[in-house]
Amino acid sequence: MRLTWGLRRAVQVRPDGIATIDGARRRSWREVGERVARFAAALRALGITPGERVAVVAHNCDAFFEAYFGILWAGAVIVPLNTRLNRRELAAQIDDSGARALLFGTEFTETAGALRGLCRGLQTCVGLDAAAAPADHGFGQLVAAHEPLADHPGSADDLAAIFYTSGTSGVAKGVMLLHRNLAAIALNLIMQLRADEDCVNLHCAPMFHLGDVGTFMATIVGGTHVFVRQLNEDVIMRLIAEHRVTHACTVPAVIDRMARHPDAATADLSSLRLLGYGGAPMPAGTFELARQRFPKVDFAQGYGLTEMGSHTYLEPRHHRAGADPEKRRSAGQASYGFEVRVVDADGVEVPRRTVGQVVGRGDNVMAGYWNRPEETARVLVDGWLQTGDAGYMDEEGFVYITDRLRDMIVTGAENVYSIEVENVVSRHPLVAECAVIGVPDERWGERVHAIVVTKAGAALEFADLDAFCRGELAAYKCPRSLDLRTEPLPRSAAGKVLKRELREPFWKDRDRRV
Amino acid sequence: MRLTWGLRRAVQVRPDGIATIDGARRRSWREVGERVARFAAALRALGITPGERVAVVAHNCDAFFEAYFGILWAGAVIVPLNTRLNRRELAAQIDDSGARALLFGTEFTETAGALRGLCRGLQTCVGLDAAAAPADHGFGQLVAAHEPLADHPGSADDLAAIFYTSGTSGVAKGVMLLHRNLAAIALNLIMQLRADEDCVNLHCAPMFHLGDVGTFMATIVGGTHVFVRQLNEDVIMRLIAEHRVTHACTVPAVIDRMARHPDAATADLSSLRLLGYGGAPMPAGTFELARQRFPKVDFAQGYGLTEMGSHTYLEPRHHRAGADPEKRRSAGQASYGFEVRVVDADGVEVPRRTVGQVVGRGDNVMAGYWNRPEETARVLVDGWLQTGDAGYMDEEGFVYITDRLRDMIVTGAENVYSIEVENVVSRHPLVAECAVIGVPDERWGERVHAIVVTKAGAALEFADLDAFCRGELAAYKCPRSLDLRTEPLPRSAAGKVLKRELREPFWKDRDRRV
Repeated sequence: MRLTWGLRRAVQVRPDGIATIDGARRRSWREVGERVARFAAALRALGITPGERVAVVAHNCDAFFEAYFGILWAGAVIVPLNTRLNRRELAAQIDDSGARALLFGTEFTETAGALRGLCRGLQTCVGLDAAAAPADHGFGQLVAAHEPLADHPGSADDLAAIFYTSGTSGVAKGVMLLHRNLAAIALNLIMQLRADEDCVNLHCAPMFHLGDVGTFMATIVGGTHVFVRQLNEDVIMRLIAEHRVTHACTVPAVIDRMARHPDAATADLSSLRLLGYGGAPMPAGTFELARQRFPKVDFAQGYGLTEMGSHTYLEPRHHRAGADPEKRRSAGQASYGFEVRVVDADGVEVPRRTVGQVVGRGDNVMAGYWNRPEETARVLVDGWLQTGDAGYMDEEGFVYITDRLRDMIVTGAENVYSIEVENVVSRHPLVAECAVIGVPDERWGERVHAIVVTKAGAALEFADLDAFCRGELAAYKCPRSLDLRTEPLPRSAAGKVLKRELREPFWKDRDRRV
Repeated sequence: MRLTWGLRRAVQVRPDGIATIDGARRRSWREVGERVARFAAALRALGITPGERVAVVAHNCDAFFEAYFGILWAGAVIVPLNTRLNRRELAAQIDDSGARALLFGTEFTETAGALRGLCRGLQTCVGLDAAAAPADHGFGQLVAAHEPLADHPGSADDLAAIFYTSGTSGVAKGVMLLHRNLAAIALNLIMQLRADEDCVNLHCAPMFHLGDVGTFMATIVGGTHVFVRQLNEDVIMRLIAEHRVTHACTVPAVIDRMARHPDAATADLSSLRLLGYGGAPMPAGTFELARQRFPKVDFAQGYGLTEMGSHTYLEPRHHRAGADPEKRRSAGQASYGFEVRVVDADGVEVPRRTVGQVVGRGDNVMAGYWNRPEETARVLVDGWLQTGDAGYMDEEGFVYITDRLRDMIVTGAENVYSIEVENVVSRHPLVAECAVIGVPDERWGERVHAIVVTKAGAALEFADLDAFCRGELAAYKCPRSLDLRTEPLPRSAAGKVLKRELREPFWKDRDRRV
């Protein structure tokens, strides 16, 4: 299927049902369907051709949702940008994708202005909230000024989106997801979260993330979308009560803050059927507290990567009272129609409970990296995506992630590649040697931690390093803690820093290293 | 996905769980997975190459199930034959498909012997139950004699099966379904029937029919299959109680017989969660009785054709007490990821509640008819399958089937094309003119009814016509009632018999003509 078929189905089965809720604004599926087709016409009038990329930088909101489908309706490709990146990073991704148009939320007005100057190919800026500069056009005005366009008659194998992910090289790579890929990811979510037209989905993960597949899930079933611009637990809990939210997917850190919230015991969360989580394992303490606070809510975990979305699921049954605590520490089993395996360096499946690399295949797996055939060939081997995660499988196909083969830190569901941070830290004038690793963090799962040997034993203040990094990197990538060493970092015979040895003291009492 | 991935997943997640139950014989998924791979090796040893067709004529049984997956595992194409066809019809389909190998159940030993002589290309016969003549090999011996073959590394777009369906021309056409098509049909069934690994699926529709997609549904989720060779309500109810069956899909006629069964009120059907039905609408009387007799069971209706499987579903909610009785008479809404429309003769969508032709598209829609590009082009228009059914859509996308545009009769979930029966009846020496139509039948939905004008007013006995037809046609296609007329049949200006006029007196008090 093409993703727009899901929207067409929603308009057909619930034309007068509420499609989107954003603050006080509610729109029916009929209205949303028409606005999407009108915006697609506007894109066409702006010269956007099928297959062309259109970038978006915005917080979650109904206009982002309409723009998402409008881009696909026009046959174009959406490039959702990570709102936490700095301007240099954003510009690099816009240029890499070749996008000539940028849509931006009102909070990114200054950013958009700066991007106009930084990007080589950017020609048109559309303000999602208003037409004021640097916008050439306002989203609402474009919708009003155009007659609906017919849905682009393409194939399920057309490119739908490019999601950027930082790589081991420190350079952001564009993950190409076809209509077929995103549809497979969304249909699996419907099966795993048991969604139907009663689904009221709260977007409490950022829509620029593949973690927020609710965009398609709740559309295909003809449910309702509730948007929240800031991931704040006060707002999340208020919206759940106010709009009778049934489904919400987020990261363990947010669930932790919800469970610890003073209103957790008294807030009316009776509508909530399912809390999905991913991006990081849920600490046992958070899980026990959440189960106690929200006794009627089912939990489901998805494990995956931007390159394939959620690929394995730990079903609600494995979260309920009396479930096997060992399984609860796993990332679950292959979702329906997908395959997962643990393989050795030659790609041969290893025996159960033997650690190897986790690989997966299915209609969910990306088509490749945008304009990077060599890197694509490295991770896509005979259709199997090499996750870069180490793990083992038990006798019932549950996958346990034990370590990360790629040198990557997952903090608050954001991936940070050590090399990218090390490239910056090492340029600080006082730094002789450095290594950046992930260390356990109660709130964020992992925290970016820098280990530095200074030149001639000079004293480096954390504040100094922090200020230096913030000029170069998105805030979430900057080290949150610093460890000064006087001895050289441990290295392999080949001269490679022994990260495992550096991580060991931080992780030694934990059963998984991620 | 390829269909074999579903089997691989089942072996991975429930290796020691029961996969198949056939009488006293139970096999685990590990055993079934190994037997499938061994049978695939045997097929290869018999010279069956990837893409080659293998025909099967058998009642439902565990060996049929293993053979089904074994054929796919070898990369070959299964041709499941309708067990009710006569030998001439079976031979025509085997020859049309080009199958060189035939697998047969023990009840079809004589049939297989006859087919050896009738089929031009048939070279190898395999007995599913034994190796005795006319079998060249026995299924069990082949499994035992070969080491497991690796799963064929093909694509989701490879041909998986050819299901034969009689056509308006009276000639059987092979419906080509790819791995992707059957997977989409099965994944939608998982969503609609809410199946998971607890699913115990009773195969109470014939496995040669696309109506029995449980073959893939219950495999992908890693559930359990229970086989029943004869569709007998005594046996069905005993097996539900004995094996704690959760899911069963059948035709309304069988549900009717179950509900009227003297044991219905006392039998332990407490395990049954869902009764799916299709092939025909459920008469209101049957539905009321079934809901009364099985108060805890959910019902779901699938509407579709061999050319696309179940495409729309009437969900359980629309069968429960208090549901809108109008919706209950519908065929439901488009399934997730599929699209349905009602169009006029030019393919343009008509307004709601206006009757037109029902058309559908999605990954479920067949690739075409085997070796019949003209007939394919007639029913597949820009990816939309022309169902040949007339109907309308209401304001929430529910489809109501009102009449059949193709001249076809659905009796006990079997399609009978009038032209095929008329071709035979008209050859009877006493027949001058004839028309074959479907008339209402409490038990079978519709009944094959012949209207005949004899030569020179001769008397034609029903028994005489019946004997004549049975020599040429499968029993279910033969007229069950006969109406002799003395006046010429009503015809259009172009000379076409006005079927609608002939049907009118039989259907005048009903709200749908099928």
